[in-house]
Amino acid sequence: MPRNWAGGGIGANVAKKFANEGYHACLCRRTDEAGLDQWVNKIRETGSEATGFLLNVVDDNSIEDLIDCIESDIGSIEVLIYNVGAQSGLKLLEQTSFKEFELAWRMASYGLFRIAKSLCPLMSLRKSGCIIVTSATAAMRGNMNQHSHASAMAARRMLCQSLNAEFGPLGIHIVHAVIDGAVDAPDTLGKMLGDDMYQQLRQTKGMENDGLILPEKIADTYFHLANQHRSTWTHEIDIRSFSDTAWWNSDGKPIGN
Amino acid sequence: MPRNWAGGGIGANVAKKFANEGYHACLCRRTDEAGLDQWVNKIRETGSEATGFLLNVVDDNSIEDLIDCIESDIGSIEVLIYNVGAQSGLKLLEQTSFKEFELAWRMASYGLFRIAKSLCPLMSLRKSGCIIVTSATAAMRGNMNQHSHASAMAARRMLCQSLNAEFGPLGIHIVHAVIDGAVDAPDTLGKMLGDDMYQQLRQTKGMENDGLILPEKIADTYFHLANQHRSTWTHEIDIRSFSDTAWWNSDGKPIGN
Amino acid sequence: MPRNWAGGGIGANVAKKFANEGYHACLCRRTDEAGLDQWVNKIRETGSEATGFLLNVVDDNSIEDLIDCIESDIGSIEVLIYNVGAQSGLKLLEQTSFKEFELAWRMASYGLFRIAKSLCPLMSLRKSGCIIVTSATAAMRGNMNQHSHASAMAARRMLCQSLNAEFGPLGIHIVHAVIDGAVDAPDTLGKMLGDDMYQQLRQTKGMENDGLILPEKIADTYFHLANQHRSTWTHEIDIRSFSDTAWWNSDGKPIGN
Amino acid sequence: MPRNWAGGGIGANVAKKFANEGYHACLCRRTDEAGLDQWVNKIRETGSEATGFLLNVVDDNSIEDLIDCIESDIGSIEVLIYNVGAQSGLKLLEQTSFKEFELAWRMASYGLFRIAKSLCPLMSLRKSGCIIVTSATAAMRGNMNQHSHASAMAARRMLCQSLNAEFGPLGIHIVHAVIDGAVDAPDTLGKMLGDDMYQQLRQTKGMENDGLILPEKIADTYFHLANQHRSTWTHEIDIRSFSDTAWWNSDGKPIGN
Repeated sequence: MPRNWAGGGIGANVAKKFANEGYHACLCRRTDEAGLDQWVNKIRETGSEATGFLLNVVDDNSIEDLIDCIESDIGSIEVLIYNVGAQSGLKLLEQTSFKEFELAWRMASYGLFRIAKSLCPLMSLRKSGCIIVTSATAAMRGNMNQHSHASAMAARRMLCQSLNAEFGPLGIHIVHAVIDGAVDAPDTLGKMLGDDMYQQLRQTKGMENDGLILPEKIADTYFHLANQHRSTWTHEIDIRSFSDTAWWNSDGKPIGN
Repeated sequence: MPRNWAGGGIGANVAKKFANEGYHACLCRRTDEAGLDQWVNKIRETGSEATGFLLNVVDDNSIEDLIDCIESDIGSIEVLIYNVGAQSGLKLLEQTSFKEFELAWRMASYGLFRIAKSLCPLMSLRKSGCIIVTSATAAMRGNMNQHSHASAMAARRMLCQSLNAEFGPLGIHIVHAVIDGAVDAPDTLGKMLGDDMYQQLRQTKGMENDGLILPEKIADTYFHLANQHRSTWTHEIDIRSFSDTAWWNSDGKPIGN
Repeated sequence: MPRNWAGGGIGANVAKKFANEGYHACLCRRTDEAGLDQWVNKIRETGSEATGFLLNVVDDNSIEDLIDCIESDIGSIEVLIYNVGAQSGLKLLEQTSFKEFELAWRMASYGLFRIAKSLCPLMSLRKSGCIIVTSATAAMRGNMNQHSHASAMAARRMLCQSLNAEFGPLGIHIVHAVIDGAVDAPDTLGKMLGDDMYQQLRQTKGMENDGLILPEKIADTYFHLANQHRSTWTHEIDIRSFSDTAWWNSDGKPIGN
Repeated sequence: MPRNWAGGGIGANVAKKFANEGYHACLCRRTDEAGLDQWVNKIRETGSEATGFLLNVVDDNSIEDLIDCIESDIGSIEVLIYNVGAQSGLKLLEQTSFKEFELAWRMASYGLFRIAKSLCPLMSLRKSGCIIVTSATAAMRGNMNQHSHASAMAARRMLCQSLNAEFGPLGIHIVHAVIDGAVDAPDTLGKMLGDDMYQQLRQTKGMENDGLILPEKIADTYFHLANQHRSTWTHEIDIRSFSDTAWWNSDGKPIGN
């Protein structure tokens, strides 16, 4: 039996958690309407509320229209999880095209900017709201083969910090969450590695398979963050498996620096 | 009516939270046995378990003996909150004595090292345990009038990171929590500012007084951290009031850098 | 008498310094061909070599064509200073247009990516070369009214780090230089503030006017960096006036955190 | 023929560089008076001025007396290089004694505090002076087997930042220099590794032996820093070999985070 829910990644598991806690979960996915419906139905079967939307965050007006639609048809958006990745594989500079460098930025940073432009005014009027931004180690430092990913994710992080400065005092809680390791998600990690390597990684990484980050456990921490009292907001948090090395620990320094 | 519990700070409120969730809380305080007893009794009155200890972390063997005592008389220490401050007021270099510079280090860094030396072997054998270290903005950057505080707290932070690297894979979860702002605690902030200035700060800071960080809300986040699944451990977290400016935002840069 | 050379900013002063040390300086400017010619002529009058180019880094092929042109007509590019700013003034989120958010990224990050795509292969073949990237405090942390600037500059910084990882071992030295304060440059600071406020700032900031960063002194440090031995390369450096507060020192924390 | 001067490390090479540029170099060494004299004589043979002192920075009054002595007998201290290391080898927590944890702090942080207490008042009166602090990767992040080194060096870094905040505007330039790699110094690296492993490392690390950091090249950058104009001071700089990986690049993240 798969340990994570419905083969889903962070998005599906966060949706389930929030729905089970009483929220109406709106799930967004770029493609695969059937897969999306499957998740929505699984949440509904538990007696919780969910709606699914196909959304391509790089399309014109896609984000803006969807926020309008949800606000008018379903209700005020209280918590938004921005969970769009921008990793297109490990590539040397010459293998990194202009197109993918720009696309990474559109997904990592510009999409979040568009969300903020639409949603922060609404949340400001309501004097409350929470935006949790899933981010990656790449937001913290550049690295070999990460030209597009690191620059795009760093832009995401600094946008979060700038949004904090303006909207924190207006009652909007924005969290930048660095997921520092591989998430046990068949739809992303599984596809990136291929099924065989993915299953091998699952079997060898850590005890009881939890050397990989379990997305349903990320959901627990996201739910806590979304419910922090405003006198104790977290703006930056890191999340990694107990068996993993933190990003700041270079294994490559043998002399004891 | 005071908003925070029993006039207590982080320590008392964390003890209450964990006791109410089923832990036996061991409260430590350097002086004021009467105040300590009062807190212990308040926890007991709620039907929860608590024991109080006087502890001066800079005394020889004080930490080591107490850990031995608790482990043999009360039970295995599952979660330890290291909450000792090292702030002795804002002082220029010439006002900062050799004695207080060393004392700050003994409280901020050496005390935690002694705890780790005693407790990590025990937790390693049990393959589980959690140490949450309350820290301060000063751990992240030096500042005017912070010679002893910043260097002592930075030593604390890097000790936490080194402990993570060794003891994470052995099942011990260590968290460095940066409390980036003033905590609404009469015993520390109240004493530092004096009663009048403290009350004035409470009345003017933020809406509904929660521009000050409420220690009972820190306790909620500490409890969440102590219960994170080991595939999703947080090593570093920041906590500040919604109305406060993050430490990385210098108000002193007028030109838009 | 103006203290800085020819009223120029970092670009003009760096060009002059390198030209006087024996390089052929290629100066680039988006507009104002007359101003550009004036700088080029001033360098030539000292007996040094210089050529001026109009360059809009956001135009298609502009960067690529210019690198080709210089490499074939003037000589191998040994040192490139990427000095394009991306600051469009202090603006709240609602004042920040989609267009300027994207433009900031094109100037701060995408332009540098395009340079790297063209130049790093050439420098790699020659096993030497240096790219110095002028950056800003905004690359290090988000801030109020800095939505586009901070995210764009952070993308710049992480691109530099990723380039370091790939091209350092191939002999290319890339430096990210954080200019943490206002530069005494009439063409940028002067235009941003207006002449009156600029002169007032020059008179009040620091002793002897050097509370503002003097661009000819930045040039000295850039020249040192470009000539560091490859066993002692600097990848990140900060530069600020003696009288200024570092970006990590928030004046807004009154309690001594 | 050895590439670095006299088999010396950073201290000897910095002394030679500054002496050759016209300073009177005062060299300090904990033990080995004969080795110290040899260096002093080599500098004098080039026609430059140098004096040697035995100094144990952890002895009471040692630092204070020496500063008094130099100021009265030789002249005002214009530049001080604090180059005392605090690395006692890679050790697990249980191998790290209380004594060495404290000793590391005394060398890394307390010694610098004592220097600042003695020297900053004098430099403040003269409205000029420079203190360059050699530091290590460990100042930036904790790591496996670095419990004492990382916490001690982090304390050093944050003390530098606090000193910057107070003494920068008074004309004292303090630099924290992270040497991010192994220095080609027989007296430190050679002794730590043993002669065979040291020679092996020298032969295999990088091209032309400069994968190791050459201390005479560090001296060049230190000299530049000590002579930066006060409108363009550097407070933090990193130095590493072209062929080395920066500390923020963990080789242990295989998935492309």
